[in-house]
Amino acid sequence: MSEFVLYHGWTSSASRKLRLCMAEKGLDYESKPIDILSFEHHSDWFKKLNPSGKVPALLIDGVPFVESNLINEYLDETYPEPPLMPKDARQRFEIRLFSLYIDDTCLPAVQKHNWMRRMRPVAEKWSDQELEARLAAVPTEERRKVWYKMARDPYTDEDLQSALNVLIGMAERIEQGAARDGWIVGKSYSLADIAAVPYVRRLEEIAPDEVSAKNRPALADWWARIQARPAYPKALIGGYDEQGDPAYKPAG
Amino acid sequence: MSEFVLYHGWTSSASRKLRLCMAEKGLDYESKPIDILSFEHHSDWFKKLNPSGKVPALLIDGVPFVESNLINEYLDETYPEPPLMPKDARQRFEIRLFSLYIDDTCLPAVQKHNWMRRMRPVAEKWSDQELEARLAAVPTEERRKVWYKMARDPYTDEDLQSALNVLIGMAERIEQGAARDGWIVGKSYSLADIAAVPYVRRLEEIAPDEVSAKNRPALADWWARIQARPAYPKALIGGYDEQGDPAYKPAG
Repeated sequence: MSEFVLYHGWTSSASRKLRLCMAEKGLDYESKPIDILSFEHHSDWFKKLNPSGKVPALLIDGVPFVESNLINEYLDETYPEPPLMPKDARQRFEIRLFSLYIDDTCLPAVQKHNWMRRMRPVAEKWSDQELEARLAAVPTEERRKVWYKMARDPYTDEDLQSALNVLIGMAERIEQGAARDGWIVGKSYSLADIAAVPYVRRLEEIAPDEVSAKNRPALADWWARIQARPAYPKALIGGYDEQGDPAYKPAG
Repeated sequence: MSEFVLYHGWTSSASRKLRLCMAEKGLDYESKPIDILSFEHHSDWFKKLNPSGKVPALLIDGVPFVESNLINEYLDETYPEPPLMPKDARQRFEIRLFSLYIDDTCLPAVQKHNWMRRMRPVAEKWSDQELEARLAAVPTEERRKVWYKMARDPYTDEDLQSALNVLIGMAERIEQGAARDGWIVGKSYSLADIAAVPYVRRLEEIAPDEVSAKNRPALADWWARIQARPAYPKALIGGYDEQGDPAYKPAG
């Protein structure tokens, strides 16, 4: 068994996705929670692990692995039980495509809601001088824009509704997959379902009706089956507003 | 053997990547070149194949497949000869990570140069009225911004240099991989090398010194070995300014 050290954010969707995969595989790790609000992921030591300054990063026997979808597929290939990718090539393709859709389309949508909830209350208090100093510490142009936006030009209700519509579109895709075959792709729980979990969890907080049994019975059943799996509580996917998960115990 | 219908752009990097993989696998296809400048990829019939309106899309026995990295991996799993993914899980991870880097980091960089070369001369001539009508036909907010930018707010020399620096960074990564093991990941030609080819081809046109044997001997040797493969000419990766490849013959 390799040695795993996980650098992650409690509420980061990509971190939650990786924790859930590791829990399914029964892989224990040394936990290194990263404090996003104090820019810990932008520190020099973290950028040595992941130059893009994003969580999660997983050290496997001292070698850093990044990008949650790709780490999860690597873990599935290396620790094949329980299998989280089917043998069928077309289903494998569909799982990778769905996971890419989660990262490319759903992540930017959920981030708008997360940033407004978590970063806006901090950033709106900054003076111009403080803002300038804070921005100077942010390593990527993309993230500088986000912090600037949170400080001075927050998302409108219309922006947030449009981001919510993206997540509702995701819920509808899950509803259709679950109604057809029980899971998002095919008749087995897979990395596609794992990729969706943090987003369904968050959608349930933002707009609970969208995941209710009344409105989306197949999704609600899918969601109940996932939460009933022994791995689910081990992945520590708590409430978004909790300050670190209540179940968290430092590993070291 | 399945039946393949390929919707693609001659100079689209993602299309070139897919054509090269198909040529390696000896897969013939019915060719449907898409006229990007006349917005053909934004037409209703094409959006039925790929709702995101991006090329390429590959119909396999009538089923549309999208996302070039994922299609290539599907083709490699379905047509295993010659193998383009190694058996080693860590190398497979690295190939997927490199391919994602190509799409997420190198594609936006090369697009700045491509758009200025191809779209800017068209869009800068539009009157305000014409611009408005053109933008109304573009299906995604993201692409509307691009066309607006090409019409009224083109990239500066500084923007283009910074995009070029990204491609130079890629060349440096290839140099290091090729110097170490002969190929980008490990000792075999793989989907990582295929993912890089359209970008090296384009970098060679934009800044030939960056791929010269004098400046990057391992990359230049890698590039010569790829161009010597029988698949390379079959992939029809012509000059960027050619109006459709001279070698193109309609399939139908």
